Amino acid sequence: MTQFTHDTAPTQYAEGGGIRFAYRRFGMPERPPLVFFQHFMGTLDDHDPALSDAFASDREVILFDNAGVASSSGTVPGTIEAMARDAITFIDALGLNTVDLVGHSMGGLVAQEVALARPDLVRRVVLVGTGPRGGEGLGALPAWVAELFTRKYERQEDMWLPILFAPTESSQAAGRAYIERIMARADRDAPFSDQSVAAQRVALAAYGAAKDPAYAHLKGLRLPVLVVNGSNDIVIPTINSYILQQFLPDAELILYPDANHGAHFQYPGLFARHARIFLDDQPAP
Amino acid sequence: MTQFTHDTAPTQYAEGGGIRFAYRRFGMPERPPLVFFQHFMGTLDDHDPALSDAFASDREVILFDNAGVASSSGTVPGTIEAMARDAITFIDALGLNTVDLVGHSMGGLVAQEVALARPDLVRRVVLVGTGPRGGEGLGALPAWVAELFTRKYERQEDMWLPILFAPTESSQAAGRAYIERIMARADRDAPFSDQSVAAQRVALAAYGAAKDPAYAHLKGLRLPVLVVNGSNDIVIPTINSYILQQFLPDAELILYPDANHGAHFQYPGLFARHARIFLDDQPAP
Repeated sequence: MTQFTHDTAPTQYAEGGGIRFAYRRFGMPERPPLVFFQHFMGTLDDHDPALSDAFASDREVILFDNAGVASSSGTVPGTIEAMARDAITFIDALGLNTVDLVGHSMGGLVAQEVALARPDLVRRVVLVGTGPRGGEGLGALPAWVAELFTRKYERQEDMWLPILFAPTESSQAAGRAYIERIMARADRDAPFSDQSVAAQRVALAAYGAAKDPAYAHLKGLRLPVLVVNGSNDIVIPTINSYILQQFLPDAELILYPDANHGAHFQYPGLFARHARIFLDDQPAP
Repeated sequence: MTQFTHDTAPTQYAEGGGIRFAYRRFGMPERPPLVFFQHFMGTLDDHDPALSDAFASDREVILFDNAGVASSSGTVPGTIEAMARDAITFIDALGLNTVDLVGHSMGGLVAQEVALARPDLVRRVVLVGTGPRGGEGLGALPAWVAELFTRKYERQEDMWLPILFAPTESSQAAGRAYIERIMARADRDAPFSDQSVAAQRVALAAYGAAKDPAYAHLKGLRLPVLVVNGSNDIVIPTINSYILQQFLPDAELILYPDANHGAHFQYPGLFARHARIFLDDQPAP
């Protein structure tokens, strides 16, 4: 599989639970595969090639559309926990026994529920721009942030500039570079449907509303976790990353300056170095 | 200077401002020297050889007793700002034009004031187990923590086990390894005096009492800062590390799991990797 990159890996399909899952898989099969979990309104084409290709040099990278999203069949369920069950169905359909996960935003919520449900399957998790079940402001966007998700642009990908990057010259420049990267691939994923977006909104609101100030469920996530975010995440407030670190049994936190909800896209080289140190070099607990 | 290590570098002396400063300097002179700022009740012998020697492979490491501490002459002043002036006198006495700083605990407070007073001198700062001027609970230890600093031990260095490491088997084992490392050097620094400890207590209390909920002075620290701490710092509560990241103009935060006030001594290899990425590889702003 080593000949493929983020931009050239073919879209493949795997059948499981009555769903036909679209995915792309590439990289060197040396370590547990790294499965990326996508954010609200995201498709295969919103993953950052700079990250995929950095990780693919010494492990397999797997990008997928969960049930009901873009090129995958089925419908998006209305809970994060059900999305996690769909994701497990996909991973099982590939016949994988051990995986590492990178979950961004909503994908980070789903990744946590996958690890809670299947501790045998998941070795390590990287959570970017996300928070715990019941987190502060999670799934309850301020009106001015919610509005950013409804804007129309000449180049629609530009909608991510104010959502994922900070309103500084340096961060916006990094954002434009990210948009160029995700638009480079020729054959594109299908667009997301109105149903998928509506269901994701419902799931996010329900997950954020499940309050437990003690975050007791996080004690069940016993695997090593790396939590990463920007200094001022306007979508899932940065304090949630701190909360994850404080309440998870074995979590490291890294916060980057001058950054928002897409900090790993802003600093892809730095993030890849930090994530690889975490994934490869720390002893298991 | 490359033949020396943490354990073999001779103690030298530099004169400045009427003070005779004790210091040790070793390592490869390839990059700006890395000057370590010591914690409350700390001497030259409380720095971790595992860290010094890791950094010394490609830069000079400078350890020093500030005015009034252990083998240095003079008296310890009653404010952090005055300690910073003494530290600047020492750095100037060595004729250095550009330095990087690592400050731990009280040393992190002094390092911040050095960088505020002399932005021309300081390139980058690593702050471990510390907080901002006016930080939460800073210099106002709970009674059970204050008591830990007064205990007598058969091997007095063991006092640091409950202060710097978490009360878990894994953290205490790392702590015992740290104690063995700091005791390996044959010729020891002088002990700290009662005056030095009393003045340091006064300085810490005054610094913590200087409240400003907006932490406006941190905006003056425009250089890149790496903030590091353990997940549960009992001496300077971990939330202060988060506050530093949130209020400094250009700060990265790393929090380690299962760790207390001496997280960098618990994970010396990991900390050295993270600190070197920060010191060497990120572009200046």
